[in-house]
Amino acid sequence: MPSGAQALLRTLVDAGVTVCFTNPGTSEMHFVAALDNVPEMRAVLALFEGVATGAADGYARMTGRPAATLLHLGPGLGNGLANLHNARRARVPVVNIVGDHATYHAPYDAQLQSDIETVARNVSPGWVRTSTSAESLPKDLAEAVAAATGPPGQVATLIVPADLSWTDGVQPAVPVPPASPRPVGTEAIEAVRSALMMGKRSALLLGGSALHGPALRAAARIATTTGAQLFAEVFPRRIERGAGVPAVERIAYFAELASVQLAGLEHLVLVDAPAPVSFFAYPGKKSHLVPEGCAVHRLTADGDDVAGTLAVLADAVLAGGSRTTGSVKQPAKAPKTPRAPEIPQGPLTAASACQTIAALLPEGAIVSDEANTSGVTFAGASAGSPPHDLLTLTGGAIGQGLPVAIGAAVACPDRPVVALEADGSAMYTIQSLWTMARERLDVTVVIFNNRSYGILDVELQRVGVQAAGQKAQAQLDLADPALDFVALSQGLGVPAVLASTNQELAAALRRAFAEPGPHLVEVVVPPVFSGRRLKALPTVLSALEHLPAPLGRALKRRIAP
Amino acid sequence: MPSGAQALLRTLVDAGVTVCFTNPGTSEMHFVAALDNVPEMRAVLALFEGVATGAADGYARMTGRPAATLLHLGPGLGNGLANLHNARRARVPVVNIVGDHATYHAPYDAQLQSDIETVARNVSPGWVRTSTSAESLPKDLAEAVAAATGPPGQVATLIVPADLSWTDGVQPAVPVPPASPRPVGTEAIEAVRSALMMGKRSALLLGGSALHGPALRAAARIATTTGAQLFAEVFPRRIERGAGVPAVERIAYFAELASVQLAGLEHLVLVDAPAPVSFFAYPGKKSHLVPEGCAVHRLTADGDDVAGTLAVLADAVLAGGSRTTGSVKQPAKAPKTPRAPEIPQGPLTAASACQTIAALLPEGAIVSDEANTSGVTFAGASAGSPPHDLLTLTGGAIGQGLPVAIGAAVACPDRPVVALEADGSAMYTIQSLWTMARERLDVTVVIFNNRSYGILDVELQRVGVQAAGQKAQAQLDLADPALDFVALSQGLGVPAVLASTNQELAAALRRAFAEPGPHLVEVVVPPVFSGRRLKALPTVLSALEHLPAPLGRALKRRIAP
Repeated sequence: MPSGAQALLRTLVDAGVTVCFTNPGTSEMHFVAALDNVPEMRAVLALFEGVATGAADGYARMTGRPAATLLHLGPGLGNGLANLHNARRARVPVVNIVGDHATYHAPYDAQLQSDIETVARNVSPGWVRTSTSAESLPKDLAEAVAAATGPPGQVATLIVPADLSWTDGVQPAVPVPPASPRPVGTEAIEAVRSALMMGKRSALLLGGSALHGPALRAAARIATTTGAQLFAEVFPRRIERGAGVPAVERIAYFAELASVQLAGLEHLVLVDAPAPVSFFAYPGKKSHLVPEGCAVHRLTADGDDVAGTLAVLADAVLAGGSRTTGSVKQPAKAPKTPRAPEIPQGPLTAASACQTIAALLPEGAIVSDEANTSGVTFAGASAGSPPHDLLTLTGGAIGQGLPVAIGAAVACPDRPVVALEADGSAMYTIQSLWTMARERLDVTVVIFNNRSYGILDVELQRVGVQAAGQKAQAQLDLADPALDFVALSQGLGVPAVLASTNQELAAALRRAFAEPGPHLVEVVVPPVFSGRRLKALPTVLSALEHLPAPLGRALKRRIAP
Repeated sequence: MPSGAQALLRTLVDAGVTVCFTNPGTSEMHFVAALDNVPEMRAVLALFEGVATGAADGYARMTGRPAATLLHLGPGLGNGLANLHNARRARVPVVNIVGDHATYHAPYDAQLQSDIETVARNVSPGWVRTSTSAESLPKDLAEAVAAATGPPGQVATLIVPADLSWTDGVQPAVPVPPASPRPVGTEAIEAVRSALMMGKRSALLLGGSALHGPALRAAARIATTTGAQLFAEVFPRRIERGAGVPAVERIAYFAELASVQLAGLEHLVLVDAPAPVSFFAYPGKKSHLVPEGCAVHRLTADGDDVAGTLAVLADAVLAGGSRTTGSVKQPAKAPKTPRAPEIPQGPLTAASACQTIAALLPEGAIVSDEANTSGVTFAGASAGSPPHDLLTLTGGAIGQGLPVAIGAAVACPDRPVVALEADGSAMYTIQSLWTMARERLDVTVVIFNNRSYGILDVELQRVGVQAAGQKAQAQLDLADPALDFVALSQGLGVPAVLASTNQELAAALRRAFAEPGPHLVEVVVPPVFSGRRLKALPTVLSALEHLPAPLGRALKRRIAP
């Protein structure tokens, strides 16, 4: 007779959840023991829970299906919280299975007792449940999988008291079908169509599922027909890009730049994306970034069929004939044939490293980008690289890039994965390298080591601090001691090299792309924003030359006096 | 005019909080900028929030005063949660300062927006507050410090919206005096006194503040006079021990052993400790460990004056004359003069490494023990080492030993700190090594690398799994790839060596104890419990020989047929 844990695993697999990212403890031992009874389940061990939750996020971004996590009580969930936050913000489906003390043990308030549900509500506001009986456990789980899957996707958390796992004679539950995407009514589509055909300056802001596959291509047809611009949300969970893929301009992280991008817009159509807001608040600056007088149209609501609606809208604008005349320009297009950049000469900088990576990026690569300030030029450099997917820091909780790369590699074993990592961000979940080595994942990690929290150098001035003293600057400084990522990587089982020139970086990348399994390349680069010499807004804006080339030029034109 | 952040820092310092363990982000930049205005505040940067929170725990364990943490929104608090759990369970005072979005920015639901209070309630059930105005901010903080300080100590969490920090013209608040420890009534003390004098088999179970200093010595006088045994809770936050220090027998982690320790007790007096319960529940085993028929007396309640009450009780039992005759024995005593063990010959094992460390332990050392299964013999080996303090895994959330060592070293710069770390546990907060290097802390880290989650090998069988399959065993196995802690340590700036013999370990320890600053020594050792060959309870009990020597012998006698 199957145990509760065996029924749990069987229910997961029957519902299509065949990967579990784990960091178990005593209360999860029956789940662990049951792994041998359910051969379809792949269990991927992490040394730290943030690796497991971030990997589940990356897996779901590439498959559209949730993975499970296996976490140990409140502290285990706490350790996984930051990357679950990132998943929640991007509506990525994840099923957390959190072991708890046996039901009858809880009243004794043993050392690991805590209120798990209160932690879970932070990342699973829509679906948290503590199973109360072994009989209901598989059904609870089936409902968790359906809830997580969406649409929209969410983080569903099921808390499993240990005695339910070790109860015998528990039957698996039949899968609960997830909700079907709702079609959007014709009136709503027509309202957007007519707005786009008015000849006003218009744009689609694409987020979530609108940034890859048929949805993206439908959006591009709409843009071509109507002259509307295509914007992407600041931090997309997955954006398809590169040569021949419709070009989409990402809203800038810096609100000062985003305001320039959006200036003059008269109609903004939100497609699976919220209205753009500043990432943080700054003294005297506004939070809401939609220009005054711009009409905002929400094409899709939560749970709507995004790709289908875009397709209908694309057909409608085509059928409706040409738009009313206006002053809008055609959006920029990416080159139709791959035109990757050359490997640069000159000193190794963050920008030259980005260019080198873009020059060698393999077709079909999945790029997990958490290079932050050092990676700001990668988008421009790789616009003509072969088609690839880019996965970004959706919720702003750093420590996400390496785990997401794990999940993407598990999801797509036939595609090369490239993780672009900032030094500061890498250190939150550096344990990821061990799981990459253990699972022989084809991930190439590039560490941009600028020996500082580079973004905070900028932020310190953006929030209005004019002259930071020595103690303040020390809080942003990672140079004492210098982190040696080659040593860290070797300590975690991943072969690694330090590249000191663009040519050495190119050689290391070629080797990494050619050989199976994980590799790490460290580059030590100066901070992009030249930290301490930065003088607030004017200097931030002068950094435009580091932005993706067409965007940078366009922005410079727009802000020119 | 001081900013809100400056007033916050000034209020902290005025209230006696002069150390802040930090991992700031944009919403904390004004706090960071204010550091230069308040020279009395020491800011210790961590690469990961769990390092900061665990360090605050270790600092308070040694000083009795809280440190502050500086954390970045919900994800930052999440990353710090596991070690805050450990602090909460041990009633260690900690003041969390969690930055949040500006008050007016919250409605825009930007990427890092989340419900911070719900996370905080898990570790700060008694005191969570979000400041609502710059004027009230310093007073809120002063109240947080008083609440954290106790008694009993607790984790107090103040959430600080960014705009309150950057508001100008804010005055610091005067410190709020913490509560005074309450004296225990004479009737309650007399009840315990008469129970102890009845000639029954009795014991004091000491926890919290009862395990060091005058409180411990008063407890020892009570034991000597009454014949009561002295037990310590399983995982004390701080226990003073070694040659000449009153010997206290720690309750065993394994409930099977704890039951043996407590068998036959007729009176159990709880002193700043809860009644003993099993760490986890196991099928068919009981959770509550007090023997049937044993009367439980709670000498102190939350907030009572523990040391004062023990002193009164010690005087009372002395004044009351000799106890009624009975069959009780005098408790075992530690040797009066230091009798550290010899450095062992033979192969390097976890036990021989423990003996070597005990042989060389410097007087006044602070030992942070998270060696788990590998460290099980350290207590016995070091019973005759020079006097030292031992800090343990209070809440069971692993990843605590290295951060606690940081906090202890910051608190006590003139004392050597020794961290005994298991490989699995070390990897949750391995970033700690960087902070040790940065702050030049005198910490000697010994990594016991048994290439497995050794405790789970035992637990898998204790929960009733008879034969674990290959996939299950792989979840406990850390050998593929093998972690190289020497490389990891060097990558984080701490000099490190691998010791392959007891003599090499001794040489490395001598060097580490002689030189200032941090050092790491890795030993690769076989698992203590021989993992896969373990056959549940009988084998667990046969592991008694690995227990502290007097306890092991006593337990063997007691369970002998």
